[in-house]
Amino acid sequence: MESSKVKPLEDGETSEGIIRSASKKSILFIFDTESKMSSFDVCLAYDAGYDAVMLYENVTPKDAERLVQDALFSRGPKGSRFTSFFIGGKDLGKAEAVLEAIKNIKSPQLVSSIIIDPRGAYTTAAAMIAKTEQALLTTKMGKLENKRCIIFGTGPVGKIATVLLGKLGCEVVIASTNPNRLNGKKYIKGVVRLLLKRYDVDIRGVYAPGQKERIHLLREADVVFCAAAPGIQVIDRSILEEIGSEKIMVDVNVVPPLGIEGIKPEDDVREIHPGIFGIGPVTIGRLKCKLEMKILREAREAGEKIYDYELCLKKARSLFKGAH
Amino acid sequence: MESSKVKPLEDGETSEGIIRSASKKSILFIFDTESKMSSFDVCLAYDAGYDAVMLYENVTPKDAERLVQDALFSRGPKGSRFTSFFIGGKDLGKAEAVLEAIKNIKSPQLVSSIIIDPRGAYTTAAAMIAKTEQALLTTKMGKLENKRCIIFGTGPVGKIATVLLGKLGCEVVIASTNPNRLNGKKYIKGVVRLLLKRYDVDIRGVYAPGQKERIHLLREADVVFCAAAPGIQVIDRSILEEIGSEKIMVDVNVVPPLGIEGIKPEDDVREIHPGIFGIGPVTIGRLKCKLEMKILREAREAGEKIYDYELCLKKARSLFKGAH
Amino acid sequence: MESSKVKPLEDGETSEGIIRSASKKSILFIFDTESKMSSFDVCLAYDAGYDAVMLYENVTPKDAERLVQDALFSRGPKGSRFTSFFIGGKDLGKAEAVLEAIKNIKSPQLVSSIIIDPRGAYTTAAAMIAKTEQALLTTKMGKLENKRCIIFGTGPVGKIATVLLGKLGCEVVIASTNPNRLNGKKYIKGVVRLLLKRYDVDIRGVYAPGQKERIHLLREADVVFCAAAPGIQVIDRSILEEIGSEKIMVDVNVVPPLGIEGIKPEDDVREIHPGIFGIGPVTIGRLKCKLEMKILREAREAGEKIYDYELCLKKARSLFKGAH
Repeated sequence: MESSKVKPLEDGETSEGIIRSASKKSILFIFDTESKMSSFDVCLAYDAGYDAVMLYENVTPKDAERLVQDALFSRGPKGSRFTSFFIGGKDLGKAEAVLEAIKNIKSPQLVSSIIIDPRGAYTTAAAMIAKTEQALLTTKMGKLENKRCIIFGTGPVGKIATVLLGKLGCEVVIASTNPNRLNGKKYIKGVVRLLLKRYDVDIRGVYAPGQKERIHLLREADVVFCAAAPGIQVIDRSILEEIGSEKIMVDVNVVPPLGIEGIKPEDDVREIHPGIFGIGPVTIGRLKCKLEMKILREAREAGEKIYDYELCLKKARSLFKGAH
Repeated sequence: MESSKVKPLEDGETSEGIIRSASKKSILFIFDTESKMSSFDVCLAYDAGYDAVMLYENVTPKDAERLVQDALFSRGPKGSRFTSFFIGGKDLGKAEAVLEAIKNIKSPQLVSSIIIDPRGAYTTAAAMIAKTEQALLTTKMGKLENKRCIIFGTGPVGKIATVLLGKLGCEVVIASTNPNRLNGKKYIKGVVRLLLKRYDVDIRGVYAPGQKERIHLLREADVVFCAAAPGIQVIDRSILEEIGSEKIMVDVNVVPPLGIEGIKPEDDVREIHPGIFGIGPVTIGRLKCKLEMKILREAREAGEKIYDYELCLKKARSLFKGAH
Repeated sequence: MESSKVKPLEDGETSEGIIRSASKKSILFIFDTESKMSSFDVCLAYDAGYDAVMLYENVTPKDAERLVQDALFSRGPKGSRFTSFFIGGKDLGKAEAVLEAIKNIKSPQLVSSIIIDPRGAYTTAAAMIAKTEQALLTTKMGKLENKRCIIFGTGPVGKIATVLLGKLGCEVVIASTNPNRLNGKKYIKGVVRLLLKRYDVDIRGVYAPGQKERIHLLREADVVFCAAAPGIQVIDRSILEEIGSEKIMVDVNVVPPLGIEGIKPEDDVREIHPGIFGIGPVTIGRLKCKLEMKILREAREAGEKIYDYELCLKKARSLFKGAH
């Protein structure tokens, strides 16, 4: 007995046929764990060549699992290479829970690319670190993995930078600078515990609400990342006088006053104080933008990659290759 | 007195002009009665050639009426042929209430196409039935309209399959299989009443939580549709031994264990038991996907049709034409 | 010391490069202060040539500020000319608060175009007034700025028409016609105060729930705008008998019964009563549609303009230029 057959469709009529005729549209689904997803990511996605960007708000891990599965089913293994997913939102933990849910999908096979960049933290942290490696090279200060690093700020950017530096093998301290915290020491202990548990990095945390603690920390640091709240100055001139030289300082706060007194937004390894070289927020911002664009373009063209923080850093480093 | 006139605009400048210059974009508005609309439908819509897919969540009948009217006004009778509407969501009743509201629009004239497919129920049910007709033909078992049919499952797919079979004139039984229902007999009576009231089909309902009831039902059936909850086995080997032969069995449950023991996902009218021919969920899924693609393409190109379950079935049948 | 440099990217690889290669996509962000944004605006935007229309619901002034800034940052000053923003919603005040927040953005420079048209009020009011100026010209009744105007209706269209006429220097009365208001006189006083405070126009308000008040107002008016609730007749035949001639009457209510008895939807300066010339809602609607299309096209192509009600009126007038 012959089984019944669906009439063969003309070329280009089926989903697969469209691929053959090379007109498959590239679609980016943006999942935001909250509402009002970043217009930054939307614009960049279109500029990276996506044909369509679809916004989904308040996405839970459960939602994401179903949405990714449905999308994979609809286009099949070949077509789904033209589908990508971007996980955004304000909250690092929520975004990473969404990523986990997607990674745990057993069937169908995950052939689409996944980007995760809540509040731009992954690309910003990766850009900061790749830039710092480059700066150490040009200032002949050596390799980042041998440096003592201090990160001011415990938001998404500060956390991911800490994780990346910890994984590189640096000696890392993360510091909370907010003088209004009711129990700053307890808070920073919680941050350290979370970083150990979720990312498996064992680093030191310090509550540094005042000048004294900051000077103490900075004296023992080679590389300083300032990623505290926008418009909050963390390091002023008087601190700079007290902490010695042979340091790289990176500031990602673009809202005046900047995080480090004397740094200008466009500084690109400029000597802001004798022996202290500064990298400003616009320099980092441009690099972050280039990095995100590179990742979006790759994801659109290739598929099957998960752009987590480690792949992010690798891609950030590749922006410098061949430049020297 | 001459009335004042708006300055004639250059070709291509007005909405109508754009049509003439053949560059009118095709737009699909997806109305979901809940949130997180299906990414399946979004991908398929782009692959069907739509230039833009716009998502509206939590759409009520009142919302839909206004949104369709506004869209019709904006593009006029010619331009609105390039606009389509797709009604989705989890709830059959809510989706159908939205369709009713749109059909009741008095002005302007409804020249856009409307697709309704909550949870894929319309296309899945239509694909199942058209495939079964084809299977009866190839197995030389005769015509579907003369068959005794049993549908396991009272979700959207089960309900719409029941309605379509009832309208074809089959002898139909719909069965609830969930053994955890507190009052299964009352529940299934409610389903039967609803099908009579809303769809004008008068069929029989049975509560079949156990093997005994299922065997009884299956002995008297020629065609069996299994559309119960995913991952729930409804018919096991021991049941198959007891129910005789000369039957077609269709399973749409793709999550293991499948609804019918012995059926494989890709089965395409395979003899799974002596005299019993099985059609698996992947075979149905592919057909459903082709059907939805066909409908989306037609809606995009032509306009002025309402793809309700009956038109869905007609389109599903057309997929087989010329194949034999 | 040479500062480190990011490797120069190939042409077309960066955001700026894409501009050079002339393939930059035009993106319209629609911000709605409520949910379910107008499908009218969406369709028109695509027909105006936008490559992508992104919908954001329940947007607050704070949200808008961040979303516009993020979008500006992502594409830079050149790329952001291809980004536009459209503020919609039911509530005039909320939409205008969103506009204010955007106008107050200090950095980066606002090079994108902003359109504001809550409930179509700006374009409808501007279309009504430009059309009336034209009608006065063709009927040889003189200039609008010398006329006594009465506006029936205190919704968004009525309010913005009142503001525009007040700014032109007309003698303007705005009237509430709803006989069910509990305290109509107090209500209309509030409207007048709001118009003075928010728009700096000092006009007169009247509560006109019945025939007597309306006749009184109409006798002293040269130009009458009827923008009350849809389906509510404000002026009947018996009123028309009592109010003299040499008048222009404009009706924007398209739902029968129209606002003015005897006016037909397509009337285009037709003598509906001896010496009274009527302009119907379809005539205004068409003009509004052309105006919005013109604005969207301009915004898409040029950037850096804010299409507030005054620019709206200027653009509406330009539709008539060269027509006579």
